[in-house]
Order: sequence, then C-alpha cells, then structure tokens
Amino acid sequence: MFPRNCWYVAAMSHEIAPGAVISRMICDVPMAIFRSLDGTMSILLDRCPHRLYPLSEGTVEAHGLRCAYHGLVFAGDGGCREIPSQSEIPANACVTAYPARESHGLIWVWPGDAALAASTPLPAFETGEGYLSGLDFSCLDPSDLWGVAGPHVIHVDANYMLAVDNLLDLTHTAFVHAKTFDNAGVLDSTRIVKATGEQQLIDFFGFKNSMSAPLRNGYILDEGVPLFDNYLETYWQAPGVMILVHGAVAEGGDRERDGAIVLNTNILTPATERSCHYFWAQSVYRNRGDGKVRDLWEVMTKAAFAEDEHTLQRQQANLERFGASSLADDVSLILKADKAIVLARRMVSRMVRGEEAAKAA
Amino acid sequence: MFPRNCWYVAAMSHEIAPGAVISRMICDVPMAIFRSLDGTMSILLDRCPHRLYPLSEGTVEAHGLRCAYHGLVFAGDGGCREIPSQSEIPANACVTAYPARESHGLIWVWPGDAALAASTPLPAFETGEGYLSGLDFSCLDPSDLWGVAGPHVIHVDANYMLAVDNLLDLTHTAFVHAKTFDNAGVLDSTRIVKATGEQQLIDFFGFKNSMSAPLRNGYILDEGVPLFDNYLETYWQAPGVMILVHGAVAEGGDRERDGAIVLNTNILTPATERSCHYFWAQSVYRNRGDGKVRDLWEVMTKAAFAEDEHTLQRQQANLERFGASSLADDVSLILKADKAIVLARRMVSRMVRGEEAAKAA
Amino acid sequence: MFPRNCWYVAAMSHEIAPGAVISRMICDVPMAIFRSLDGTMSILLDRCPHRLYPLSEGTVEAHGLRCAYHGLVFAGDGGCREIPSQSEIPANACVTAYPARESHGLIWVWPGDAALAASTPLPAFETGEGYLSGLDFSCLDPSDLWGVAGPHVIHVDANYMLAVDNLLDLTHTAFVHAKTFDNAGVLDSTRIVKATGEQQLIDFFGFKNSMSAPLRNGYILDEGVPLFDNYLETYWQAPGVMILVHGAVAEGGDRERDGAIVLNTNILTPATERSCHYFWAQSVYRNRGDGKVRDLWEVMTKAAFAEDEHTLQRQQANLERFGASSLADDVSLILKADKAIVLARRMVSRMVRGEEAAKAA
Repeated sequence: MFPRNCWYVAAMSHEIAPGAVISRMICDVPMAIFRSLDGTMSILLDRCPHRLYPLSEGTVEAHGLRCAYHGLVFAGDGGCREIPSQSEIPANACVTAYPARESHGLIWVWPGDAALAASTPLPAFETGEGYLSGLDFSCLDPSDLWGVAGPHVIHVDANYMLAVDNLLDLTHTAFVHAKTFDNAGVLDSTRIVKATGEQQLIDFFGFKNSMSAPLRNGYILDEGVPLFDNYLETYWQAPGVMILVHGAVAEGGDRERDGAIVLNTNILTPATERSCHYFWAQSVYRNRGDGKVRDLWEVMTKAAFAEDEHTLQRQQANLERFGASSLADDVSLILKADKAIVLARRMVSRMVRGEEAAKAA
Repeated sequence: MFPRNCWYVAAMSHEIAPGAVISRMICDVPMAIFRSLDGTMSILLDRCPHRLYPLSEGTVEAHGLRCAYHGLVFAGDGGCREIPSQSEIPANACVTAYPARESHGLIWVWPGDAALAASTPLPAFETGEGYLSGLDFSCLDPSDLWGVAGPHVIHVDANYMLAVDNLLDLTHTAFVHAKTFDNAGVLDSTRIVKATGEQQLIDFFGFKNSMSAPLRNGYILDEGVPLFDNYLETYWQAPGVMILVHGAVAEGGDRERDGAIVLNTNILTPATERSCHYFWAQSVYRNRGDGKVRDLWEVMTKAAFAEDEHTLQRQQANLERFGASSLADDVSLILKADKAIVLARRMVSRMVRGEEAAKAA
Repeated sequence: MFPRNCWYVAAMSHEIAPGAVISRMICDVPMAIFRSLDGTMSILLDRCPHRLYPLSEGTVEAHGLRCAYHGLVFAGDGGCREIPSQSEIPANACVTAYPARESHGLIWVWPGDAALAASTPLPAFETGEGYLSGLDFSCLDPSDLWGVAGPHVIHVDANYMLAVDNLLDLTHTAFVHAKTFDNAGVLDSTRIVKATGEQQLIDFFGFKNSMSAPLRNGYILDEGVPLFDNYLETYWQAPGVMILVHGAVAEGGDRERDGAIVLNTNILTPATERSCHYFWAQSVYRNRGDGKVRDLWEVMTKAAFAEDEHTLQRQQANLERFGASSLADDVSLILKADKAIVLARRMVSRMVRGEEAAKAA
C-alpha cells in the first residue's frame, strides 16, 4: 500500500514536449500525461469513458486530447469538448482529471482526494544559506550556483519502499557500490538519525575516507590528501522524496570553502505494488569544475544506480519467490543501521492508516 | 462468457490439408482439428484420455489420429481404435468429438450440446437477387460472380465482442483507418439499425464521400467524379458472424449497374475470454477489374485490419489494466452511434442466459 | 504435493567448485548451495534474514557466504559470523540450513524435518554381484568397472511425477523415441512389476528386438545377429530415484558374458509443482568399447531425453490448459501398461499423507 493524498513526481518536464502525451502508471492508476500546444500540463485517467480505450494513444489538439478510437476530445479538466458522431455532449461524458503541478523541471501529480491537493504545497525541505538554498529543489535548475546532471528516471521492478530503504541505509554502498563509489569508510560512521516532523527525517553519516578515484575526483580532492572528511546527509520526506547532501573536504578543512558539495535528488514514485519510478539528479554546488565534475557525477551515478536497480529487482524477486510482495510488515532482522528505515516506514504506515481511517469515516 | 450452442468458424479449409492436424482454442476448449487422408474433417478435444497428452501433437493415420505419447489411435467420432500396449480396448477409452461442418471454405464447430447441433443450420443470411445472392457465404467461392480476397485469419488478443463492437460502429473508421480507408464522411451518415430476428440485425450507413485513392480505386470510380454515394450495410448474426455489404456509385447512379459492390465477410470466434480468431474475406461482386480490384482490397484490408488488431489489443489491455476483462457489463458511456452494439450485446446476453437457465433446469 | 522428509538430489558435485554458489529451487524452497574454499558443501535458505536478499548473489569467503547487499556473513550451519555495520551479532541473526550430503558425485538435500535426516540413509538399491554392484550409485564413479556418461541435469517445466510416470511406462519409447532408441519390440514385452518394499518397486520388460543402429551399436551387437534379447529393468525408490538396468545379448546368449549392460541413473527432484530437475547418467558395465560406447550413449541419450523433455513439457502445458496442475488424482484412463505408475503414485501419496498426518498430530 502507498499513501495517495500526497504529491508524487509523475514525469520530468523534458519528457513531454508541447503536443506530446505519455502513459504512466502512478499508484496503480494508469494516467495519460499531456502538454497542450501552449504548454499547459494535464493529467487524465488513461481511459476514455466511451469504450474504455487508452487516451494516451490519442493526439493532442488545440482544445484537448483526442481519443484514437472514435475521436472524442477531452480537455485538461476532464470535460468532453467534442463527440464526432453526434452534436450533443452528455453530462456524464467526462474523465477523471488529476491535480498536476510543474516546478523545477518536475511534473507532480496528486493521485488521491483532489480537494486536499489545493491546500498542500509541493514537497520541499527547509532551505538555508549557501548549498542549503537548493533544498527546495531549486538545485535542479542549472545556473552558476548549480551544475546539474539530470534529472533522469529509472523504471525499477521493485516496490518503491525497497528503494527508500536502500537510500536510508547507506552502509549498502560499501558492498553494492564497492567498485563505483568505493567508500567502505561509511561502515565506521558517526551516524545521526532524527525526525524533523511527522513526515520528515534527516539521516547523517560522517566518516573518514581515503579512497582513490573516481569518487575523489568527484570531490575535487588532490591525490596528495591522505585522508578526508566525508559526509552523507539525507533529507527525507514521506513517502519517497529525498535530497542527499554529500561532500568531502581535506581533513579539518571547511566544508563549504575548501570542499566539494553535491545535492543528490532521489524521488521514488510507486507505479504498482511491485514497481516504481526512480527520478534522480546530482547538483554540483557552485558548479565547480566547469561542467567536468557534473559530467563525472552523471557517469558515476548512472553506473552506481544500475547496481541499485539490479539489487532492488533481485530483492523484489526474492520477496515474490517467498510469497511476500513487500517488506512492509518488517518480518526481517532489524539492525542498528536500519534506524532510519524503521522510522520512515512507521511514518508512511501512519499516513496509510490515516487515509484508510478517513475513508472508513 | 460466450454462447456455446452455436456454430463457430474453427478454421479455414485451406489451413488443414489431408493428413494434417492443428490445435486451436475455441470457446476456452483446446481442440485438435484434423483431416483424414480421404478428406474428412474431425474435431476432437485436444487431450488423450490416457495421460492427457495433446492429441494435436500426434499423426493422422488411416484409421484416425495417433497420440504421440503412447500411440493410442482415435477415430473422428472420438472412439479408440488401437492401444499398442494391449489388445483390449476399454469402453471408456474415448475422447469428446465435436460436431463439425465444412462449407464454402470454412470449417465450423459446435462447442456446446452436441444434440442440438444436428437441428441447427449453419449461419447464413437471407439471400436475394444479384449481389445479395452471396449472403449465404457463397460469396467466398471464387467464380465469375465473385473475385475473392481471402479468407484469412488474424488471432487477436482481445475478447471477441470487442471486435464485434468495432464492426457494429463503423464511425471508428474515420479515426482508426484515417490513413487507409479515409472515409470521414461516415460521421454524417444516414444510419439505420434494425433487428431482423432474435439473433440478427442490419446496420446501415449511407453517406456522401469525396475521398481520394485508395478507396476510390477499390470502388472503381473515376478521378473526375467529385462526390459519390457510399454505403456500408452490415448483416450480423449472433454472436460473431457478419457480412458487410459495401460499395459506392457516382452521385445519383444505380448501385448495381454503375457502381462497385463488395461483400466483406467478418467472423469472430472466441478463443478465450481475452482472445479471438478473426476470419475475414473481401468478395468483389461480378469480379470487376479482372483480379486487380480484388488484389487491391486484399492489400488495403490487410493494412486496415492490422490497425483494428492494434486497436482491439490496446483496448483489451486497457480493460485488464483496470481490472475488467470485458465490456460486457456496459459500464461505459453510451453514444447514439452505439445503437447496434447495445442491441447486439443484448441479444448475445440473452443467448448466454438462456443456456445458463437450460443448464440449471 | 511432494514428500519433504526424504533425500533429493539438489545438484551435481561438478556444478559447484570450491568458492562457488548457485541458487536452486527444491520442493518450492529457494536454496543457496555453496562450497567453501576447503571443499565443504552447505545448503542455506536463499534469503538473508536482514533484508531478505538472495544469499546466492553473494560471495563465498573463508568463514562463510557473504550477502551482496549489506555484507552479513553466514556459515554453513546458518549462523551469522559477521555484521559489517555493527559489532554485536543478535541471537536471531541466522538462516535455515538444510542437511546436505555428497556422495558419488551427487549433492543430496533434505528439505523436510532436519531431525529425521540423520537417521535416514541416502537412497540406494540392494546391490549384488557383477553389474548389480553399481546399484548403490557407485556406477556413477568412473573406473575400469564403469564407463560413465554424465551425470547431467535437465531443468524440465513439468511436475516431477510426470517424469516418473514416463520412466515407469517404457512403452512410450516405441513412439516418443521411434527415431532415437528405435525399440518398438517393447510393446510385446514380458512385463513384471513388483513392489520390493513400502517405497520401492522393480519394473521389468523383456523382449525380442531386431532393430538396427544406433541402439545396436550401444549394445555392441554384430550386424549379422538377426534377433536379440533386450531387457529394461527399472529399480525405483519413492519418490523420484531410479536406476534403469538395460542391455541386450544375441538370442539365448549369457547376459553378462556375451552382452552389453548399461545402468541408466534417472533422478527427479521437484523444483515447483510445475517444474523439476532431471539428473541422469549412463554407466557402461566393464567400460566396454574403450569409451566409444560410453560416448555413444551420451549422444544418444541426450537426443532421446530432449524428446522426453518436449513430451513432458507439452503434457504439463496441456494439464494447465485444462486447469489441472498434475495427474496426481488419476483422472485418466488406466491401461495395463500403467501398473507400475499406479503402484508408485500410491506409494508417494502414502508418504505425503503420512507427513500431513504427522504435522497435524
């Protein structure tokens, strides 16, 4: 199960040009996402009310999305604007429209109760000075302040919470990413997990690192530096929105003045119970390295996230081999490193139970 | 659900040469269809009673179909004629045989109560003079009277009634076949739908058309003719047997004397709840155009029916994405253009309910 | 259903080198089978207790199998030896270990109640003099006494009892293997089926044969010999362990002195209800023919067992087309040739019912 009364990223702006339409499964709901010729985004249930044909097979025209089967046209608000075989439009000729927003290159959708969407802001973390200014996802806008690799999307055959788990216990990087990120030092971290609200937490790892290229290049550290301070700080908002602030600096140096800082956006959207969309980007603070560092993070992260994709899919497949479809019930052995996972899963469960209670009432 | 006490087309004569056997799913029943060396067609349940092996894997011999596993031989009546490992043939050594008929190049099967088959004639429409003489499917026999493209079969991953719907609302041709049949004029038709019996109806479209090649070539109309009379008249018999009489003539001309007339046989047979066999042919009246017109209809119809196949499969897939397996319950928005569909579905539902009531009694 | 309190072959020794690990489904249980660097075999449930990741994705190290996700290490007894992210190892940090034995090149596993494994010897048949000395599976050890083709494994998409049935009614060879083994004479056999214990039986076929190459070459018979004595004697132990003693000798000759004798090991292990592992070997007695005869049996058996694989998979698929998953309920027509099958299925059913009764008690 997943909460429905929240904003999920449905797509990236660059996926849908004016006049384009795509089909995407969001929270078990097939949606047709399209952009009008003047640029407005709309998201409709991907099913014509007439013969239940997928609207995403249709074409975007001036007054809406035209169904490819019998030519009915629906506007972004779900209302029917034309029925080619008759002049009257019946009152029930309409399709569900989902609240949609576009911001910082991401298209967000609200799959739940539409009445609640208007009063709920898009997810964002409290911002601060310097690199913390990017925590409202403005770090996704390329500028002098941010060199941006992405955003990209991976469609993963695994429950979205397995991907959240993965990001909320970064000790996995010592094993899954031994050949890419190469930071076994994470196992000896100072670790701080703290809830920062009913649906937010921060998960901090600080450790000494001595690894060689390529991560060292990503942090613009001289080969001569024997040991450096490495940190990984994940800002999480339920259920699947994260920015991982990471960086390194020569031992004892000043994080911002002497080191490299990168904001790694990771956003998970449920497709079905057993699949999800994984949106990510790496934003290099102050765009250091004139694009080369950004490109390096692009290449390195693609390689590493392919490892995550493999891992998550094998984990999902194993859960299914054993007849379970998720780890939601926490039947597993809990380690100290799972502290953030346990906390996050409790917050998400509370959201789901809250929605169920509201429905039952 | 589908009616079982009726004749369905199982195969085309040319698919099964003497000595050949094929497996085909008809109404959720796997059947082995074979032709003896002397030409007789037989249809058996595709399951040897011994170890339940598919008989369609076997070989046709002089006295019947020999199972490929332990060599038992079954005659066309389902009786066992030989058991290689023993001399006695037990009384229960038999397999269900289905009533089968062959006519005008089609092989028909009766999947329901065999006792009712004998008294039920093969489907055919009332014939008349001229081009109406072909309505008993004699239009499938190539002759001076009929230039025949087909019959052909398409195996479609969609419920057979979705294909029936498709043919009983030809307004779809303006959209699905915009690039092949190119007859948007159908949207402004004079439309007459009338029941002609408990299990038959006629669905007539008459309209003015001005489209260019290739449809114009199919109707052998001069380029100089600015506007012509186009008609599409579907004869339907429940649940899935249709002949679409179509043609065109220069405005105000005589349909038979001055125009081209084509009979388009369309027969849908359920394979499973989510798949069907679509048999079709185009028969050019008086074989006009010396075979060239027939060939043109063959090519044009193949292209157009590939569009239908795509459409039907996408529609079926969408129904399944939303958890429904058919449109039988008519949860959809009903338009005026759906008049024939609604009438036909009611007739088919009545047949199914009748069979259920007879079983319960 | 399959019995669980018995030894099944899980793999062949040569499949798992020191330091190797494979995943294999045995009786619906995913197992990780690995060999330590010093050669010890261990079999664990293929699921890390932490995040339920498949252990078979991991690596074999000095002190056990390391999970590829967060690096936990498990010894062959299922106990956790290391958790990289913390120093303490909780008491519940363990995984199910299955009793495992290795003998004559086969790795056996006990998927049921581990307490019963210690007191149950590995399957073997009573041995005797000469070629009967190999019936304890020592015929799988290449030596002067045995020229061994195999062992090999085929992963078959069919219930394991369909494969047992196949081997307990060798009349199928006249049809399925008409082109490979070419021994239609089996249909006129002297046939003796006798139970030799609660879970063992012997199934004997003796017949005259006159077939040509290649089977004649396998039995080292001169072309000039017009007719010879052929025998097929299957030793079966429930549920899926068999040795088929087969051979031929010129009519009236002495089986051991003048003929060729081959022991064909056939062992079936359930993977799931609809798939199994089929381990086989051919052991040529006294290694006659200097390896050429052994090679001939290797090639001929591979070709013939590919025919069996096809047959079993088509049979399974047909059972599923008709909504059944096995023939366990014996809904089929029983012939005289099915005597051994009926007897064997009864013995296996008794085992399953016994286990169910023990569980309920």
